[in-house]
Amino acid sequence: MQINLQLSEKYCTFAANFRYQTMQRTEISSLGEFGLIRHLTEKFEIRQPSTIKGVGDDAAVLTFGKKRVLMTTDLLLEGIHFNLEYVPLKHLGYKSAVVNFSDVYAMGGTPTQITVSVGVSARFCVEDMEELYAGIKLACDRYGVDLVGGDTSASMTGLSISITCLGVADEKDIIYRNGATENDLICVSGNLGTAYMGLQLLERENYAMGDKSKRTNPVSGDTIDAFEGREYLLERQLKPEARRDIIEQLRKAGIKPTAMMDISDGLSSEVMHICHQSGTGCAIYEDKIPIDLKAAELAEEMNLNIVTCALNGGEDYELLFTCDLKDYEKLLPLDDIYMIGHMTKPSAGMMLIGRNGEELELKAQGWNAFKESANEK
Amino acid sequence: MQINLQLSEKYCTFAANFRYQTMQRTEISSLGEFGLIRHLTEKFEIRQPSTIKGVGDDAAVLTFGKKRVLMTTDLLLEGIHFNLEYVPLKHLGYKSAVVNFSDVYAMGGTPTQITVSVGVSARFCVEDMEELYAGIKLACDRYGVDLVGGDTSASMTGLSISITCLGVADEKDIIYRNGATENDLICVSGNLGTAYMGLQLLERENYAMGDKSKRTNPVSGDTIDAFEGREYLLERQLKPEARRDIIEQLRKAGIKPTAMMDISDGLSSEVMHICHQSGTGCAIYEDKIPIDLKAAELAEEMNLNIVTCALNGGEDYELLFTCDLKDYEKLLPLDDIYMIGHMTKPSAGMMLIGRNGEELELKAQGWNAFKESANEK
Repeated sequence: MQINLQLSEKYCTFAANFRYQTMQRTEISSLGEFGLIRHLTEKFEIRQPSTIKGVGDDAAVLTFGKKRVLMTTDLLLEGIHFNLEYVPLKHLGYKSAVVNFSDVYAMGGTPTQITVSVGVSARFCVEDMEELYAGIKLACDRYGVDLVGGDTSASMTGLSISITCLGVADEKDIIYRNGATENDLICVSGNLGTAYMGLQLLERENYAMGDKSKRTNPVSGDTIDAFEGREYLLERQLKPEARRDIIEQLRKAGIKPTAMMDISDGLSSEVMHICHQSGTGCAIYEDKIPIDLKAAELAEEMNLNIVTCALNGGEDYELLFTCDLKDYEKLLPLDDIYMIGHMTKPSAGMMLIGRNGEELELKAQGWNAFKESANEK
Repeated sequence: MQINLQLSEKYCTFAANFRYQTMQRTEISSLGEFGLIRHLTEKFEIRQPSTIKGVGDDAAVLTFGKKRVLMTTDLLLEGIHFNLEYVPLKHLGYKSAVVNFSDVYAMGGTPTQITVSVGVSARFCVEDMEELYAGIKLACDRYGVDLVGGDTSASMTGLSISITCLGVADEKDIIYRNGATENDLICVSGNLGTAYMGLQLLERENYAMGDKSKRTNPVSGDTIDAFEGREYLLERQLKPEARRDIIEQLRKAGIKPTAMMDISDGLSSEVMHICHQSGTGCAIYEDKIPIDLKAAELAEEMNLNIVTCALNGGEDYELLFTCDLKDYEKLLPLDDIYMIGHMTKPSAGMMLIGRNGEELELKAQGWNAFKESANEK
């Protein structure tokens, strides 16, 4: 078989320059991350009998025997996904691993193996890498996951971390994004917007660092600890956990969600993914969205709307799932699970119901790395 | 379980700055890529019953049923692993996928699925990404592999590509690096140093581009095509193939290599990996190393030693393997396979036997992304 990838003169005489002179240029931001992924991957066919589900959920689903194998991957880039001015490398390692575990749990699986590839510029030393891997190791230890491979390389600038995670699940336990139907309850775990407020706090203090006067009590002259009493917000940002406990609770209670995903890009964007894939609309009740008190206080102080933060903030790594109405009674006694709305028929749209009953259309303003200002989040 | 990853004051008050003031700094180049990987991963334990082999071969070996699952990953960074001044994006996509397939074939497996994560700066447009993915798709089509997931993200600078590949194999067919024993034959496929010469040619012409006089025939005034007749060298650099055909030939001939790996970092470094892991020494005969004529001509022209290029050049993605002596007769009729030496007892060292019988100790001067000059290759 001859493939259509010839080393024609066109390519050999420095195709890159040629390309820029003659080809159309469409900005990536015009498609957004999900649009780009869809656009780039839609032409790929599935051929392997071991591929059950490819692109389009928290993880791919594969089969190599009785158990199903889940596969998910994440690429984290310095300056886009993290800022080392205030993110300790050990925490970064921990979080990089945990966000992948979260994707596997969100499919109803158990993470089992990861590979870790790291690109580092000359600014980093071996001790830095030790810190990063110490965080990865803690995450592996805590979640019982094996590190089985990877790659380290120099980079021209900054730190890049790419982690791929495999997990296992029985076929009957796997939960996709497309299983929700009209009237299903919409539930979330934990609280939302808290990781985002932790980020706001870190960014504010990082920015204020240069000006000591802002961090000194004008009367006593004591240093003000801007983080005191707000450790939980920082923890949510710097040391998120995957909600394995929620999966276990649901299983014990005999509840199998009809659809599930983890909340990495913000509630709004994630609910819309489930609606799109399940072919439903939804109604989310503003006053049912679980908010942490300290997060709300800080939002007030920073003149932010905490509900907007909860809808669009991202990085909470809580679970969003839908359940059949008949599971209502079983859900009630469960810890740290909140019913925030229900699925509707598609024609009803994807709506947020305000405190006074007003209906607003949900918009996905969540995390999009291709926005004009890549650092805005 | 409480984990030892506290948000202590130390971390919260901008640990990065703190760290640089107080901690020791060991340069990564002092360990090198393999030293660093070993150093960082040696404390990780294997706990999952589904992990058969973790870090340390071309791919990890896992089990989720009857078949074994192989898992390998590669991170490619602009300015370190590729130069877009002369590497077309479509070729880059093709190569990025194929080098992962090569790792799976080098374990005796068949690649089945990949995930692709890409980080791109604002310099790239959708059409660029289409080119990149068109190359990935050609590779997937040619090798029958499914793209099952991935991630695209903005990056601050340049292009990062991380690919993870899964493959399958029957347990009996898997070939590790540690199975060679004294007197085993050492074989390679194809020819070596050719991809490196292709790179030298591309770099020379890229450098010369600004000076048109160097590319014009002083007598006729015609443009000299510096690539004419050297397409094969470019192809080896820009469009390498994974040697699936060699694996098939060996299987048909009833030969199971005792150890195998693919040659991505140069013959010298790879032979040393097999010797280290198998606990043997080796003797490689300089005059047996397969060299392409055009590569040798160009090396002569550029005042390079082609044997040094073959030993240390890398990126040939040929297979290096060892076989029991009893397979000698079976190996003889096989296409494009060359016996270049034999394994020895460890005390004999790892030796290169020159054309006049002189013995030189092999040195791994292959690709090391952490060398002082990261672009030197």
